[in-house]
Amino acid sequence: MLEGFNANGIAAGGQLTTTTDVENYPGFPSIQGPDLTDIFRQHGKTFGAESLLETVTHVNLTGTTDYPPPTSPPPTNQPPLKKIAVTAGGTQIVCDSIIVATGALAKKLTFDQSDEYWQKGISACAVCDGGLPLFRNQVLVVIGGGDTAMEEALFLTRFASKVVVVHRRSELRASKIMADRALMHDKIAFKWNANVVKAEGNDAGLLKAIVLDTGEKIDCAGLFFGIGHEPATAFLDHQLDLDDNGYVVVAPGKTSTSVEGVYACGDVMDHEWRQAVTAAGTGCMAALEAERWLAAREEKVAS
Amino acid sequence: MLEGFNANGIAAGGQLTTTTDVENYPGFPSIQGPDLTDIFRQHGKTFGAESLLETVTHVNLTGTTDYPPPTSPPPTNQPPLKKIAVTAGGTQIVCDSIIVATGALAKKLTFDQSDEYWQKGISACAVCDGGLPLFRNQVLVVIGGGDTAMEEALFLTRFASKVVVVHRRSELRASKIMADRALMHDKIAFKWNANVVKAEGNDAGLLKAIVLDTGEKIDCAGLFFGIGHEPATAFLDHQLDLDDNGYVVVAPGKTSTSVEGVYACGDVMDHEWRQAVTAAGTGCMAALEAERWLAAREEKVAS
Repeated sequence: MLEGFNANGIAAGGQLTTTTDVENYPGFPSIQGPDLTDIFRQHGKTFGAESLLETVTHVNLTGTTDYPPPTSPPPTNQPPLKKIAVTAGGTQIVCDSIIVATGALAKKLTFDQSDEYWQKGISACAVCDGGLPLFRNQVLVVIGGGDTAMEEALFLTRFASKVVVVHRRSELRASKIMADRALMHDKIAFKWNANVVKAEGNDAGLLKAIVLDTGEKIDCAGLFFGIGHEPATAFLDHQLDLDDNGYVVVAPGKTSTSVEGVYACGDVMDHEWRQAVTAAGTGCMAALEAERWLAAREEKVAS
Repeated sequence: MLEGFNANGIAAGGQLTTTTDVENYPGFPSIQGPDLTDIFRQHGKTFGAESLLETVTHVNLTGTTDYPPPTSPPPTNQPPLKKIAVTAGGTQIVCDSIIVATGALAKKLTFDQSDEYWQKGISACAVCDGGLPLFRNQVLVVIGGGDTAMEEALFLTRFASKVVVVHRRSELRASKIMADRALMHDKIAFKWNANVVKAEGNDAGLLKAIVLDTGEKIDCAGLFFGIGHEPATAFLDHQLDLDDNGYVVVAPGKTSTSVEGVYACGDVMDHEWRQAVTAAGTGCMAALEAERWLAAREEKVAS
């Protein structure tokens, strides 16, 4: 298990480490995200998994690199088995099968002082952070025009006095259902054809306003990026088929990818459900598929 | 949450209540099946779910029965919303959406004394029971010729001195990969064109032999049915599209069924993965889909 060393700017454990209360993973009515990832890691180790805090920088899925010679020569009438090479922390690991579970990451925008107020009012996850006391009965801003932004805006109406959606275009690209829900909501207002250019803070170092490129200033306690997620697939260097948004393509109802022996699970192949338990479910599927594939290959070699 | 009262002969909580150690549900390195179902139930109740120990005997998904009149009349220019009726424990519950999570159940065969030695050597789940001390280094019999039987036989080779597969036909219907693995295994023997007609026990009341319709007697400590599972869909009375094996058909990658507002998750729609965590994952998907559908319908009514 190559967990990564602050890979994509996230601690080992992934997106769950960036959340606080997790209440929808069955079995734990309320648990902190980082604690849940510790429990998962420990569970794996109980059954012999080794965990390395190295970031994978490169993979070779084609099996054509120079691998260390096998300890015994392959049968002469049979081509050598394809191996996969994974480079992490400067060393190469040669293996038979890999499961890609590198997840995804909420996209962020940068503008004047966006870094200063990151996590001090600026967030990329309304569902994770929206319920914090600092946002209660305050004006909150969501940036985006797709389903993610609408879902975040609608979610934030539970806590906010008012939600303002700032969108760079003149119409939403969200699904009609989600767009209608947001447009008809009496707590949600829209700023069209606008971009945030600056964040401003108060004496406590917390966000207190944003400035748009239209010149307008909006007093607000929170700003949420609702511009989608980016799957962590750059290291694959297009050796696996990806969809238009960069997610790994898997066979329907499976975790097998375009390369034999390579499986993908969790948010790196799922842009729809993106929950801890749905990722755990596809993780289990990937483990079962990899195990079956390895067993079948072993039989083939033995025969 | 209508949990059922010993529905399909299984306690409330489902198939997990029939297992002992569960080691592959992420978060719990080792937990007893019934304890895990208690934790899930408690988790649901924490968030307001009500749980009734009633078995659903009938559903009406078409929305044509006489429902109690709504408290306020619907807008005159709009047909009344379709409602779903669920009958459980003699009372009818009218609702907007249902999630079918009734699971599946391992099939059993009956023969002379099969009941006497049930759970005293006879089991329907090698993976659940195969590791018990009573089966260590013993001859174990598996009945069946499909993938389930081959998987059970291969699994049991870890514990058994020998595994005998009894199959009523002269060839396996398992996938080639699984069949080859079993046929080539030096611990697995096959009895073709044979059926078990009798079980025999020892003084301790445990299985000690089985008799085939060929007249042959096999001394064995364990007999495992590997003849597949049966999804619990009879109560649906074919109001949902089912596949050839009776599993609920869902849209690819979704939990939506052939009837709007009706979702299915877990083993009742999944004959491939059938693990606690994969069922929890599809359960989460079903909850999200039902929630979105209800929210969209609410907007439609309000507009």
